[in-house]
Order: sequence, then structure tokens, then C-alpha cells
Amino acid sequence: MSKYFSEARSARAVNARMGPSVNPRLREVMACLVEHLHAFAKEIHLTQQEWELAIDFLTRTGQICGDERQEFILLSDALGFSMLVDAINNRRPPGATESTVFGPFHVAEAPERAMGECIALDGKGESCLFHGQVFDLQGKPVERARIDVWSDNADGFYDVQQPAIQPKWNNRGIFTTGPDGRYSFVGIKPVSYPIPHDGPVGQLLQRLGRHPYRPAHMHFLVTAPGFEKLVTHTFVGDDPYLASDTVFGVKETLIAPFDRVDDGETIWRSAFDFLLTPTDAPR
Amino acid sequence: MSKYFSEARSARAVNARMGPSVNPRLREVMACLVEHLHAFAKEIHLTQQEWELAIDFLTRTGQICGDERQEFILLSDALGFSMLVDAINNRRPPGATESTVFGPFHVAEAPERAMGECIALDGKGESCLFHGQVFDLQGKPVERARIDVWSDNADGFYDVQQPAIQPKWNNRGIFTTGPDGRYSFVGIKPVSYPIPHDGPVGQLLQRLGRHPYRPAHMHFLVTAPGFEKLVTHTFVGDDPYLASDTVFGVKETLIAPFDRVDDGETIWRSAFDFLLTPTDAPR
Ligand SMILES: [Fe+2]
Ligand SMILES: [Fe+2]
Repeated sequence: MSKYFSEARSARAVNARMGPSVNPRLREVMACLVEHLHAFAKEIHLTQQEWELAIDFLTRTGQICGDERQEFILLSDALGFSMLVDAINNRRPPGATESTVFGPFHVAEAPERAMGECIALDGKGESCLFHGQVFDLQGKPVERARIDVWSDNADGFYDVQQPAIQPKWNNRGIFTTGPDGRYSFVGIKPVSYPIPHDGPVGQLLQRLGRHPYRPAHMHFLVTAPGFEKLVTHTFVGDDPYLASDTVFGVKETLIAPFDRVDDGETIWRSAFDFLLTPTDAPR
Repeated sequence: MSKYFSEARSARAVNARMGPSVNPRLREVMACLVEHLHAFAKEIHLTQQEWELAIDFLTRTGQICGDERQEFILLSDALGFSMLVDAINNRRPPGATESTVFGPFHVAEAPERAMGECIALDGKGESCLFHGQVFDLQGKPVERARIDVWSDNADGFYDVQQPAIQPKWNNRGIFTTGPDGRYSFVGIKPVSYPIPHDGPVGQLLQRLGRHPYRPAHMHFLVTAPGFEKLVTHTFVGDDPYLASDTVFGVKETLIAPFDRVDDGETIWRSAFDFLLTPTDAPR
């Protein structure tokens, strides 16, 4: 057998080139990546022109990235790759609340607020009381659970997307449970919004006959001592994009009730309990 | 079965999202890509942190690209992907001269020169007479074959990499065969050189325990009416990097003799014949 590259043994030729003292994990990840990339090109008989299109696409994707824009994350999201990585790394016991994508709009160190406080600072949208309890898998309330929440405003934008227009920390806050594990806060009933789609990923979605919308959702990041970090959303059940979330984030169990109450305080109420997985849970 | 994304059927969920009027080739290429990317993540159990490293790597790779630098092509080259695409698209009949990577340093419309002329304009390096014949697969000389050649200079740089230092069109030229199919020109015995390795791809190579060098080679682009375009190199047989070309471009049949002659005209002679594939050749 030739010591040189050949089509038949292309991936092996590339992977055999790695040195003896490569980090073992890097070695297996790169070998697996090379095998799959080569298998893809062979299976689809990738043409030279298609390769050139791919190089150009990746280059434009990199060049649009900046402080406010991460087009490779959008690409990963749009190809379901982010959700897959989330799923692989967050297999949870039955009954535990499921995770979904983190998304690019979380901001650390949002204001800590008292239970029941309002996070919608711009006066827009239909008010909604979010409430529920944090439990462990045995149904025991979890004290000192930190519930970090964020959503878009009624125009479909996160505050960080409109720093000149929205009040700082609009639709964001952190709530900490007491012994009863209960939480509540007033936000708005979130609205569906498109991911940024004026770049290469938006063009790709268009060519694939796909829209760029995410169904309306409230983001939750729930942490508590002794429990696994839970990154999730709750979704508004009647959203037209629920079955076609452009980043594939929807799970059946994350669709929350949004009940119209018009009780003089808020227009909507959404109840949702979180069941946290202990860090030592058997898998 | 849920209509939503799940780990088990992740690729199918993504591919089912494509619209009804997508270009059929784009549909199959994207479906195959998504399947392989998802299979990769599952097989290797890609962690969230590794995903973040990958996003960062791709972003840096895009951001270093510019007029003079194409880091995604370097990445494709270093992973053997460019050579694989070349191989897939240039399967040739037995006996025909084999192809190899085009590389990023070709410049269109180099000066047309008379047979025997010298292309090394900077006076550096060890002179070498390159000569041979262009044949069809029956051994008949090919007239009007256009032989476009380029190499690095004795310092290991192409003229376009050193526009302020090297004469324009240094070590480049185009030669056209007569009825005998013969060609000859004087260049230098090429030297091995590293691909640009001060960016993300260079860092990756280092982590993989790989050097960034290409063994010494002369580039040839041979075209003739009625024949397939041939993009190839000839390699200097005693090069220390021959078995470890960082872009995997070496093929046994492309290693050319470089004979020391010191005949008063040149120090070296390298004979190599090109056997072109007719455009209507059976495969
Ligand atoms: Fe969101
Ligand atoms: Fe080269």
C-alpha cells in the first residue's frame, strides 16, 4: 500500500499524520471529524464548485461575526447542531425538567428581584404572571434555587439588541426561592421573533425554504446547590411557529399553559414547575 | 412519534424542515452534511465546551481571511479535504497523469514565453531545466498544449507573497507546445516551504503534532483542446517532507527525477511527460 494519500483511504491517511503526544481527546475528536467530513464528500460526490461555495460561505460567516453577532452559533442552531449538543450533554432521568438551547441573548448578573416583581420595564406587551415551584425528583421543594429569566419585549427584541431603545435589564431578572420552592414574577407574554437573518445563515435558510422564526418563549436558567444547572425555556402553546422553531428548541414537555385571566393585575398567567436533577442522580 | 426534535432522530428532524421547492442538489448535499455532522457529535459525545472551542476556532478562521489569506482553504488542505475533493472529481483512466491540489498561489495570465526561456527572474536558487512531452493516452504528441507553471523562489515564497521583494511574475510562465508536444523551460529546483501557519490552522497543526511544510514542487496547469484540464505538481524526490506533505498532495507517480547535470547551462534537469485524458475518455 502506498504511503501517500489516496481517495480510498483518505481519512486514515490524514489521521495517521497526528503526532505521538497529541492530547488523547483531541486525537479522537479530530479523527472522528475527519472521518465524517471525508465520508460526506465521498457519499455526495462533492464537486469542486460546491467546495468553492462552501469555502465562500464559511468565510462570509466568519467575517460577519463581531461583538454583537455570532453567525457560527446561528449556523449551529439552524442545523440543529446546538440542540443536539445540548441533548447529548443533558440526558436527564424521567420526570426531570428537560433542557433546551441557551441562545445568544443571556446576560450575566441581571438584577436580583423580590418574588412577584415586574421585569417588563418598557411598558410594552401583554402582562403575564409567571409562577410555579422548584422541586427535586422526589417532589420536595428546593430552597435557594436561583431562577434567572429573560425574554424578548413585545416588539420581538431582547434589550441587548436595542441598547439605545430599551431600558437596561428590560425583561430580565433573578429570583431566589425560599423554603417552599415557589417563584413568581411579572413579565410579558413573549412573542415570536426571527433570529438575525440578514447574513449568510439567513440566506441559507431562505434557500432551504425555511423561515427564521422562533416560537414565543421565556428563558430560564435554574441553579441550586446539589442540583444540575438547568437551561431551558417555556413555550407559548398556541404559537404558529411551535412546530417549526428555526433552532429546533421546542420539546413537548416545555410547552406551558398561558391562561388569559384579566384579573386586574395581569392579562395572562403561566404556571410551570421545575424538577431539578441532583448532581449525583443515576443515569 | 413527537413532531419535535429529539436526540435519536435529530438529523431527520432538521432535514424534514426543508421546503418543497429547494434545489434538489442543495437538498441532498445539505441532508448528507447534517447527517454526518450529527453522527460525528453523537459518536464522539461532543461536550458543550468542545462545541464552544469549535465555534471560537471557526470564528477566528473566518476573521483572519482577507485578500492575501484564505484560512478556510488552508483548513480544508490540512484536513486532506481539498485533496479528497480533487480525487473525487479527477478520476482518470490508467496511464493518465494524475492531478493534485491547485493551491492558493496560481495567478492567471502569467507571461507567455518561448520554449527554453527562463522564469526565475530574481537570480536566486539552483537553476533547473524542466522538459518533457505532452501526449495523449495513445502516446501521440499533443500540439497547442498550454503549460502554465509556477513555483516558489529559493527562499520558499511565491512572488505574490512578497510583492515588494520579488520581481513580478517571478517563477511563473506559460508555454505552448508545437506539433512535437515538447516543452522546456528554465526555473529553479523548488524548495519546500511551510503553508502560512501563524493563524488558527497553524495552531491546530501544532496541537496535532504536525509540521506545516510542503515538500518542494513545481506547479503545472496543462490544458489542450479536446483534453481535460490537468492541475498537478511534480515533486522533488529527495525532499524530507515527501511522506508528510501537510496538504497530502504527493502521489507516487508525480515524483520527478531531478538530475544534477552542471552542464554549464543549468545545475539540474528534470524530465517529466504529461499524459492528458481526452474529454470523451471512458471512465
Ligand atoms: Fe430567545
Ligand atoms: Fe505550491
